[in-house]
Amino acid sequence: MDIDAKKTALRMIPYGLYVLTAETKDGDIAAATVNWVTQASFEPPLLVVGVKADSETYRVLSAAGAFALNVLAKGQNDVATSFFKQATREGSTINDEHFHAGATGSPILVSTPAYVECRVLERIERGDHAIVVGEVVEAGVQTPPEGRADEATLWLKDLGERVFYGG
Amino acid sequence: MDIDAKKTALRMIPYGLYVLTAETKDGDIAAATVNWVTQASFEPPLLVVGVKADSETYRVLSAAGAFALNVLAKGQNDVATSFFKQATREGSTINDEHFHAGATGSPILVSTPAYVECRVLERIERGDHAIVVGEVVEAGVQTPPEGRADEATLWLKDLGERVFYGG
Repeated sequence: MDIDAKKTALRMIPYGLYVLTAETKDGDIAAATVNWVTQASFEPPLLVVGVKADSETYRVLSAAGAFALNVLAKGQNDVATSFFKQATREGSTINDEHFHAGATGSPILVSTPAYVECRVLERIERGDHAIVVGEVVEAGVQTPPEGRADEATLWLKDLGERVFYGG
Repeated sequence: MDIDAKKTALRMIPYGLYVLTAETKDGDIAAATVNWVTQASFEPPLLVVGVKADSETYRVLSAAGAFALNVLAKGQNDVATSFFKQATREGSTINDEHFHAGATGSPILVSTPAYVECRVLERIERGDHAIVVGEVVEAGVQTPPEGRADEATLWLKDLGERVFYGG
């Protein structure tokens, strides 16, 4: 296989940006910016997320059996960058972002325009990232998008000409 | 769950457009436009695709054990639309698009800028669409993108203000 061709072809897939959050019953919390996300069924509504297999986020998500995907809005570049780093809770904030517990116990970030909460149905561990299949069980819109919904989302390409996660 | 909120939140996920192709050893061929695609691991390179579970495409892909994802370029709206319909082969064309067989036997569309070919690792049937996990085993770039790779891709939103597949 031509490795450069593989990289280029895979980088042609466009992505949005999301803060994936989870919390265990013991209060362990995780929050991380992710981009490998796709819907995968209408009925039941399923989502697939690729999550770094050796990460604290994956450990907490697996223990919690649930997660939230907080959709980042155009302009929330700083929030995306903040959650590339370790998640630190202080009171009702994580990395200085206010949150409350959603229906699944997953942290819902107040500043993001929309979220879905998922129950973990399957975890497929075949690579450096685990494939997490979630069923959407709750959703909320905090700031209704004007115009097309996907135009309101922060895209990976909005982070800079050379920023990629994929390839 | 608020169904409208679920729809809006899920429609905030941006997508590219691809023609998914497969061919069985018996010569059954499939080609369909899809958008539910994400990378899901670097090593090995894994892709996840959501494929309508009761479709001929899924039947052929499952029998073939392999598929190609042909990345559509900006401006290939007609090709995207063509493969929303049934795939018909005539000689070395499918729906009037020239193709040749890739390393996995999957049809590679000549007009598209890039492709990856995958071996099917897992199929998870939990909804109206099956979740297909593929390992990328071959890739090619037929028209190198100028600038960012993902900008060269035809996006779902390029098909029109009201076109969505998700929610």
